[in-house]
Amino acid sequence: MSQRVNATEPSKLRIVSLGGVDEIGKNMTVFEYEDDIVVVDCGSIFPKEDMLGVDLVIPDVSYLVAKKKNVRGYLFTHGHEDHIGATPYILRQVPAPLYGTKLTLALVDLKMKEHRVPNITMHVVQPRDEIQLGKFTCKFIHVSHSIAGACAIALTCPAGTVVVSGDFKVDYTPIDGQVTDLQTLASLGEKGVMALLCESTNVERPGQTMSEMKIGPTFENLFRDAKGRVIVAMFASNIHRMQMVIDNGIRYGRRVCFIGRSMVNVSRVAMQIGELHIPEDCLIDVDSLDQYPDEEILVMTTGSQGEPMAGLTRMAYAEHRKLQIRQSDMVLISATPIPGNEKFISRVINQLYRCGAQVVYEALAEVHVSGHACQEELKLMHALVQPKYFIPVHGEYRMLWQHAELAESMGMNRKNIVIPEIGQVIEMTENSLSLGEQVPTGGVLVDGLGIGDVGNVVLRDRKHLSQDGLIIVAMAIDRDQGVLVSGPDIISRGFIYVRENEDIIESMREVVRGILRESSLDGADWVALKNRIKDDLHRYIYEKIKRNPMILPIILDV
Amino acid sequence: MSQRVNATEPSKLRIVSLGGVDEIGKNMTVFEYEDDIVVVDCGSIFPKEDMLGVDLVIPDVSYLVAKKKNVRGYLFTHGHEDHIGATPYILRQVPAPLYGTKLTLALVDLKMKEHRVPNITMHVVQPRDEIQLGKFTCKFIHVSHSIAGACAIALTCPAGTVVVSGDFKVDYTPIDGQVTDLQTLASLGEKGVMALLCESTNVERPGQTMSEMKIGPTFENLFRDAKGRVIVAMFASNIHRMQMVIDNGIRYGRRVCFIGRSMVNVSRVAMQIGELHIPEDCLIDVDSLDQYPDEEILVMTTGSQGEPMAGLTRMAYAEHRKLQIRQSDMVLISATPIPGNEKFISRVINQLYRCGAQVVYEALAEVHVSGHACQEELKLMHALVQPKYFIPVHGEYRMLWQHAELAESMGMNRKNIVIPEIGQVIEMTENSLSLGEQVPTGGVLVDGLGIGDVGNVVLRDRKHLSQDGLIIVAMAIDRDQGVLVSGPDIISRGFIYVRENEDIIESMREVVRGILRESSLDGADWVALKNRIKDDLHRYIYEKIKRNPMILPIILDV
Repeated sequence: MSQRVNATEPSKLRIVSLGGVDEIGKNMTVFEYEDDIVVVDCGSIFPKEDMLGVDLVIPDVSYLVAKKKNVRGYLFTHGHEDHIGATPYILRQVPAPLYGTKLTLALVDLKMKEHRVPNITMHVVQPRDEIQLGKFTCKFIHVSHSIAGACAIALTCPAGTVVVSGDFKVDYTPIDGQVTDLQTLASLGEKGVMALLCESTNVERPGQTMSEMKIGPTFENLFRDAKGRVIVAMFASNIHRMQMVIDNGIRYGRRVCFIGRSMVNVSRVAMQIGELHIPEDCLIDVDSLDQYPDEEILVMTTGSQGEPMAGLTRMAYAEHRKLQIRQSDMVLISATPIPGNEKFISRVINQLYRCGAQVVYEALAEVHVSGHACQEELKLMHALVQPKYFIPVHGEYRMLWQHAELAESMGMNRKNIVIPEIGQVIEMTENSLSLGEQVPTGGVLVDGLGIGDVGNVVLRDRKHLSQDGLIIVAMAIDRDQGVLVSGPDIISRGFIYVRENEDIIESMREVVRGILRESSLDGADWVALKNRIKDDLHRYIYEKIKRNPMILPIILDV
Repeated sequence: MSQRVNATEPSKLRIVSLGGVDEIGKNMTVFEYEDDIVVVDCGSIFPKEDMLGVDLVIPDVSYLVAKKKNVRGYLFTHGHEDHIGATPYILRQVPAPLYGTKLTLALVDLKMKEHRVPNITMHVVQPRDEIQLGKFTCKFIHVSHSIAGACAIALTCPAGTVVVSGDFKVDYTPIDGQVTDLQTLASLGEKGVMALLCESTNVERPGQTMSEMKIGPTFENLFRDAKGRVIVAMFASNIHRMQMVIDNGIRYGRRVCFIGRSMVNVSRVAMQIGELHIPEDCLIDVDSLDQYPDEEILVMTTGSQGEPMAGLTRMAYAEHRKLQIRQSDMVLISATPIPGNEKFISRVINQLYRCGAQVVYEALAEVHVSGHACQEELKLMHALVQPKYFIPVHGEYRMLWQHAELAESMGMNRKNIVIPEIGQVIEMTENSLSLGEQVPTGGVLVDGLGIGDVGNVVLRDRKHLSQDGLIIVAMAIDRDQGVLVSGPDIISRGFIYVRENEDIIESMREVVRGILRESSLDGADWVALKNRIKDDLHRYIYEKIKRNPMILPIILDV
């Protein structure tokens, strides 16, 4: 094909994932057509287990910072953390108007207020609304997911139309009665879609995800039989499930008490915007819990992932000021552990049993369904949208690969599929698909108020310190006289229980004294002296006890 | 009931779990009748994620140390780490003869040699053998499990008979043709069993565990279709599965190469003792792999849990000296992640996909079955043994509780069920069941060569250091003159990327200088001075950046 651009041929659409590919989290995709950029989602991800002390990881948006003036807006598919969690950090760097459904923007707004980010314009959209952002026409398309107000988004520019699935499932009997908008997806497919970016979370699972409706009877049965208080732990953002649980509770004569910061905040916001409906007289405050008999109480709380500071965990360990689990309680955990959280939630369940409560969780009853499309639903999405090109997103590498195979099995040419790499620009028109440049990207670590000031060196030190602790060798040397005037003192932390091991500390001091006796201290090269102390002590300790603490020699000049 | 002991009434049997209850791991149960003690199993457990830098956790056996002379022997149900892993540490403290089947003792022997534990007598037993240890008659009973040579054990003393299930499943079509010895269990039940200690790993799962035979066809199909090398990652100790995989490999013209320390060691031992059969000419060494065409190669390797140093992981990341994964390879991971390992194995699978290999794992095909009894098999065990008392073991608290409920659902009186606590003595005769004293117990942490020298204080420091790192404030003071003669120097590790944040380091130094200016340094109380530095700096850093590093003031006297 000729590289010369035909005068009537449109420019290329450029797509680059700043996160969310080869990982589940920090979803953020940039769409760029000539001078116009729109960004879909702006999520965060939990730190990996080797990112010690890090609170949160957000996308590196240097690319957007450099093209700040072109950014026309942020579009949000839905309000989960992996789609909105980075907003307070990134909107400060690259401000632009935000577009999303009512609940999504309400959740973003909570974050903005908490982080005191000023002057961000937010536009609430309805499904099927079309927004014009530069040369992009952006259409929101209702989908079912484990949060209300979830949407796919279709972006049309002169190069063609791209459909971004967002997170979705095809639930034919959703709690709110609104099935994923198959009609709009079908009509886009009929008109012609250039590319589909589709989520891959459940691509390893055959069949169809169970309907959210399916777990209703489980809750109904449990509420009918419950004698004491009922305590339900779940994600606050799953408003539809929350509504279903609360409706069941009210039907069986209970009042609702919200506990846990995000449960309190999200339920308040959801009621304000009319997404959650609870009669005023059915709401009770945690402080008035004691005024009601047990069988009239329904507590909705956080902690379904066993998070140490969340409501359920604190209740189980008797660390909650207002509510402690007792024998007559029934605790329902309506969630599945996010990979890596299995041990935490398992610990909380054990503790709840120890309190004597009746505990119902996923292994024992149908109290949770996934919010993501399984294989047959993914196939439906492909069949409706009939894209020319396919880019699997929102998954680890193996999932993206398997999603590519799924598309191929439906007849798509492998040449029209791109497994995206983070930061790799993909360029397309209806007639061409190619890879562009690699833009700077990656994870930016948030630790306390610091953003990006913790990197590999700092993490390596934290890791080292965490494994075998630290030994400080401190001394003062009069360099002019060449004499040791104080020390060597040995201070250790996290290395060994010192009180019962004074001999090993003393023998380490002796090793250092030996080195000092052999070294000339006047005008000496202290870098070399420090290295010798490090090396000899390291070797001595490793031979003696097979540990490798960090060794820090400190020499003060006097 | 009268406390006076009838002259003809036997003494009480005392049972105490030194591990393996309220946890999955470090199984170790003490049976004590008058002056005779026998110990069943001696396992280790992985450190919890907050036990930073710890290699292994073993049971605290102070109770046995105090009664050393009464210990008649150790009986092993099977050779998994959670049943034999503590032997090299504990046999040094409380030596006694060991009893177990051929493979079990061969695996124990590997450990003893590695740790150079001298002079331990080992007696190989056959299933149905009876051993007399003091007043205990100990009978080994064949059971199916995910390792060869697994046994339940019946202990008979004048007080009655106790059956310890060990880890088991009831596989009616096991690879070796030897079904769990239902006859012996039934005949014990017929004669009368005082108590059953039964494992609870899969008590949350309804139904029956799939037969090991079920996965044979999966492997056969994969081997038939494989074009390049086949690499199988699994636990080395699952000799029967290993045999099945290798037989399939050989049938389709492949030769076997073992890679990974435990794979090499265990397969060698298993062949020596006749548990694993491979024709001599079908074995190839890793160094001669290049001499064979890809389609003739079967590699058996470690790393099925994604362990960073294991064979498969190193192959995937091109860190293995002899073998790297390439596009034509088929990799079979025949295992399920142990809770907590999900992320590690997931990362390795992604990397294998990135290498272009075909990867088959549990989510995609039937390449693994559990080794533990599900609910229906547990019920069969209860129905065969018909115990008077029941003690659920080998499970987290919720599992023990659910196992107690399972027994109750079969008609057992709740009064005859004890959910054991670690270290809590349970005393019984045919006519009485009661709790005795609590003996000292818990986890002893092994870190390098140190056993028990890492405790809560050390772990707390490691945790603290791992989260926000460390700041050292070093200075030298002439106490007589009351003057600062060197410093304050600020040294940080794991706190912040210093080169780009010199201003915060300098401002910290200024905080310390301020304190020193305000303090009288002659004959000053340095504890107070250090505390002031710690407190003020802590407050300053937290306000500035919301982090909480460990702060270590060091003052050298000159």
